[in-house]
Amino acid sequence: MDEFGFIAKHLSVLAGPEGLDLKDDVAVWPAPKGLDIVMNMDTLIEGIHFPDGKFDAQIAEKLIRVNISDLVAKGADPSGYLLSLALSKKVEEANLEEFCQGLVDAQQRYGISLWGGDTTRVSGKNVLTVTLIGTVPKGKSVLRSGANPGDLVCVSGHIGDSYLGLKLLLNQIHASDYQSTYLKNIYHMPEPPFALRTAIRKFATAALDISDGLLADAAHLASASHVGIDIFLTTIPLSIESTKWVLGERDHLKARLKLAAGGDDYQVLLTLPENKFAALKRQAIRANISLTVIGKITKRLGVRCLDSQGNEVVVDKAGYKHF
Amino acid sequence: MDEFGFIAKHLSVLAGPEGLDLKDDVAVWPAPKGLDIVMNMDTLIEGIHFPDGKFDAQIAEKLIRVNISDLVAKGADPSGYLLSLALSKKVEEANLEEFCQGLVDAQQRYGISLWGGDTTRVSGKNVLTVTLIGTVPKGKSVLRSGANPGDLVCVSGHIGDSYLGLKLLLNQIHASDYQSTYLKNIYHMPEPPFALRTAIRKFATAALDISDGLLADAAHLASASHVGIDIFLTTIPLSIESTKWVLGERDHLKARLKLAAGGDDYQVLLTLPENKFAALKRQAIRANISLTVIGKITKRLGVRCLDSQGNEVVVDKAGYKHF
Repeated sequence: MDEFGFIAKHLSVLAGPEGLDLKDDVAVWPAPKGLDIVMNMDTLIEGIHFPDGKFDAQIAEKLIRVNISDLVAKGADPSGYLLSLALSKKVEEANLEEFCQGLVDAQQRYGISLWGGDTTRVSGKNVLTVTLIGTVPKGKSVLRSGANPGDLVCVSGHIGDSYLGLKLLLNQIHASDYQSTYLKNIYHMPEPPFALRTAIRKFATAALDISDGLLADAAHLASASHVGIDIFLTTIPLSIESTKWVLGERDHLKARLKLAAGGDDYQVLLTLPENKFAALKRQAIRANISLTVIGKITKRLGVRCLDSQGNEVVVDKAGYKHF
Repeated sequence: MDEFGFIAKHLSVLAGPEGLDLKDDVAVWPAPKGLDIVMNMDTLIEGIHFPDGKFDAQIAEKLIRVNISDLVAKGADPSGYLLSLALSKKVEEANLEEFCQGLVDAQQRYGISLWGGDTTRVSGKNVLTVTLIGTVPKGKSVLRSGANPGDLVCVSGHIGDSYLGLKLLLNQIHASDYQSTYLKNIYHMPEPPFALRTAIRKFATAALDISDGLLADAAHLASASHVGIDIFLTTIPLSIESTKWVLGERDHLKARLKLAAGGDDYQVLLTLPENKFAALKRQAIRANISLTVIGKITKRLGVRCLDSQGNEVVVDKAGYKHF
């Protein structure tokens, strides 16, 4: 099937009115009144961001979700997306059908539609890029740069599941069937706190999504806000499956540190004044989203990790490990 | 150099205010009043859209220009772009510097700035994606679907230079040094009729950029407008260098047909009522852009190629040949 056949068969049905039935190379979108437009672009590469040979609904979901998390962290409402598929020759009709089903599901969940893009064949690995477009009320986007000393530092969801999911996919650790499935699924289909975006823009002073790793991204936020962060390592929220893994490790603190440095969580790290926390927490409970205080913004620059006694834990690697 | 070092050193200087110094994952753009937003996304792949191993200023220029041509064809004014670079390990610091110089030049020429994007490393070939964002007055974007029977069909610039440039790069044809340099340069750095965009939205009833090949793209326009097109093959404008090549071929008509089917021209094919042509032509002359009538819109569906006697020429391949 050529590019036009593929678009006509699989992608046209995903298009919103802005996409002009994907027949016009461009999307046309009446500029929304009184709003700021928020856009981001994330690329996933086969063999780096997802396993070699995997091309299915989960990959489509991941591709959308890693972009959704960026907009959610800014308090923005997503509207539509442009999709560039550079597909290897190994991708077959059946893969494309599954992939597009993933797009359908993601579109419904996040209320977005396909506005355009490009489809090409590549001799190497699949390279998938999404530009996600959304809106916030004028001036209300939550940047990285607004954190103030004294603000609480919170994180949505659980941290570290994706890191362990990746370790399992790489056969670097072992786990029970259930645990393995759970963790791999989170790696493939992270769950950004979509329902919390309005509350984020109402209450948060700064926010970003966690892709490089909680500690690395905390450092990005701290740097952009010209503040420091104290993170209490034992308060970082873990799933039951990740907790089991920690308990199986010799050094629990070191294990927690690995999860905090792991990355690919696509949860939101945010800061807010202490007196706003109860209101945000109520919204989170209503939305069935876990929200945990893990630290405080300090005047002293840099990110410090503290153990349960308040002693600093030395971090040798805050970064992020790909395939 | 890691991703953050690369962004800080090379890309931050390219960022507009919407790009938040590329420190925030997202771009924030106040929605422009009374305008439609026009967006497109094009991907270039090493070894398919440009030669293996080439990564320099020309590739950056091509990447921007193939997106500019889409917006120009819609009569839109470009504002900013998002850039995804999936870079192979072969790309070195010196390549990146040259590439970014190409971006600088393109940004100045087209009045755009970098708003964001993503940078990753890929084990295979370079995959480069741009999302270009621009505006037109509300309701004024020129779609593919507005052509009416009786409209003239015009094309900007010259057709076929890129096709021959590619043939030269693939060593499939030979040419003098000057001719070869000229044609390869057009292949790497096509020249969409940027200065004509206001006139296009004023006068054109339908338009698109020529990427798949003049004949294939004419068919796209005809299909979207539910009309046909008669194209007079000998009126298709050729550069002196392409004309020389045609004259060296045994069958001139067949040679012209190859150029018309070649693709990668990134010129604009447009339609307009006959009584508007003089006004558009004046604008083109003022902008020093060649504009040529090459055919007519017909009620009869489909694209017909006619020779200078008005006889139909059979086209066996309207498509587009990559590397």
